[in-house]
Amino acid sequence: MVTIDDIAKKMKVSKGTVSKALNGAFDVSETMRKSILETAVEMGYTKPLRKKEAPRFCVFAVTMAYRNPEDFGSDIITGFRKMAEPAGCTVAIQQLDAAFREANPSFDGYMLEHNYAGALFLDLDLQDPWLKQLHTSRTPAVLLDNYVMQNAATAYIGTDNDEAMYLAIQHLKKLGHQKIGYLSGTLNAYINQVRYEAFFRALQLHGLPCDRELAGTSNHLLENLQVHFPRLMQQGVTAFMCSHDLLAHGLMLHCQDLHIRVPEDISIVGFDDLPICAYTNPPLTTIRQDRTQMGKSAYYALSSLAENIPISTLLLHPQLVVRNSTGAPPVHTDNSCTPDPQ
Amino acid sequence: MVTIDDIAKKMKVSKGTVSKALNGAFDVSETMRKSILETAVEMGYTKPLRKKEAPRFCVFAVTMAYRNPEDFGSDIITGFRKMAEPAGCTVAIQQLDAAFREANPSFDGYMLEHNYAGALFLDLDLQDPWLKQLHTSRTPAVLLDNYVMQNAATAYIGTDNDEAMYLAIQHLKKLGHQKIGYLSGTLNAYINQVRYEAFFRALQLHGLPCDRELAGTSNHLLENLQVHFPRLMQQGVTAFMCSHDLLAHGLMLHCQDLHIRVPEDISIVGFDDLPICAYTNPPLTTIRQDRTQMGKSAYYALSSLAENIPISTLLLHPQLVVRNSTGAPPVHTDNSCTPDPQ
Repeated sequence: MVTIDDIAKKMKVSKGTVSKALNGAFDVSETMRKSILETAVEMGYTKPLRKKEAPRFCVFAVTMAYRNPEDFGSDIITGFRKMAEPAGCTVAIQQLDAAFREANPSFDGYMLEHNYAGALFLDLDLQDPWLKQLHTSRTPAVLLDNYVMQNAATAYIGTDNDEAMYLAIQHLKKLGHQKIGYLSGTLNAYINQVRYEAFFRALQLHGLPCDRELAGTSNHLLENLQVHFPRLMQQGVTAFMCSHDLLAHGLMLHCQDLHIRVPEDISIVGFDDLPICAYTNPPLTTIRQDRTQMGKSAYYALSSLAENIPISTLLLHPQLVVRNSTGAPPVHTDNSCTPDPQ
Repeated sequence: MVTIDDIAKKMKVSKGTVSKALNGAFDVSETMRKSILETAVEMGYTKPLRKKEAPRFCVFAVTMAYRNPEDFGSDIITGFRKMAEPAGCTVAIQQLDAAFREANPSFDGYMLEHNYAGALFLDLDLQDPWLKQLHTSRTPAVLLDNYVMQNAATAYIGTDNDEAMYLAIQHLKKLGHQKIGYLSGTLNAYINQVRYEAFFRALQLHGLPCDRELAGTSNHLLENLQVHFPRLMQQGVTAFMCSHDLLAHGLMLHCQDLHIRVPEDISIVGFDDLPICAYTNPPLTTIRQDRTQMGKSAYYALSSLAENIPISTLLLHPQLVVRNSTGAPPVHTDNSCTPDPQ
């Protein structure tokens, strides 16, 4: 455990100067303050919580998908605050945009400088510059849908994707579907890798064909719709599982353009149960993640890490929400993407 | 949500009688009480918690491996009680022995009859008659090292086995081992299946040979020692990962009998960090699970389920504890199980 004393000795300054710098006092020069912060981070210093001092937490988001009630992150932040604020904690929300990143290259440095006891990350992708730092950071951090192995200061929180895919495939199989395709966002996101593998495990558990050719993945909606979708239709796929609701919704609109009827010609299942799902045409069958409970559980995980309880993974049970985008497969499947005759 | 009213209507008795039967009042006949309990269980009735009423929880154990401080279950129960009792909860401990099972065929019935709000199971195996019931039970239940898919009333708690195996294999690889074998208890236990798969994933991640022939599994220590161990030695294995400390310790004693030196001739790694590991000869390198924190987390999971927060999985970070049973592989590996010349 690195102490203020250790930092003072290394920098050959007084303990008082280090303490002032770490606590943002005004009578330490900006250069000295930065230099002390950098040394503290290098040495792996983390600020001990004072007894009875309620911690300050920061929620980080790369995209803005939390500002409106219908955004994915909104209920998660609400759930987190519902637990944190009654416990006396302060919760800040910080967007990881370009300007912020330029000003703050170091995660630990930022956390120490702003006196945050822990962080919740909503949407880091695998290339994120801070994700690499999270492998060695000593600052408690909870990652939604991201897993960092071998760091007892980080925890992964999310949905039980194996169960989710099992439920979706079970539903489609019961309706009579035998060949089920998968469309996914880029496998550069950890969550997409997990869902991709979970999809194939579910096919296998239900005894359905699970050739990897049954999946298409892309960062671009258009590639999924114009390349993978017709390829899968030609393979005789009658139902499509999608890695996210927005992709499912895009597919639904594309089918309307092509006069492919949902669910008469193909069935579509989404993932997340965003508020939009109840209002698409037809309303979307999807997997519900209870985002408020997810936020509450994220608070539990983060406050546990801050108390040295080494949570690694915390998953919630998903629910299958059956609406009207799924039905029995067409009686004669002719393996083509031709429009419905009118 | 099934109510007392529903049960009364179905049984054509008064609500008062149902209420008395469910609360164990003395002025309801034993036959009537049993009959009402059975109907309540069949209908999926669960007793609602009264506001501010602290719940009663029951910890179930099949074996007695919790009575002494050095037993695996002891610290888990202590951790659970450390959280539960200050919160006003009552915690009972019940051994699932033959007499108990005969008297109590139904899990839900037992829980309802004894007014328990939830259960923690320490050591169910996959053939356990109650495990099947847990797939459809409405009673909150947390299972240590057991996963029940598709029941939002149950949660799996345990160690991050992927991380554990990754750490162990990384350690052995750094020491110079290239061919690592695995000895495991029966794959009839969920936890053994998970560790088995995690072992091979870890080999793969570290770029080591991961032929399934490198593993031996058995319910019987002797089969592991007399059949699998020599078979693996003949394959040129220089380090053995074991699914449990007791198996590792058994292997160590067997090696002493055969004058095979640990770690000079072979390295051995255990799993669990039972108190005995520090006192074996040589002391055992192993994976530590923080059992007290596991118990505390089990309480969190169970109280969450009781409040309808659908926890599915809660895993803790393991730690690699390096002692003296691991070292560099012998310079000349001659692929045989011959004793050390003396």
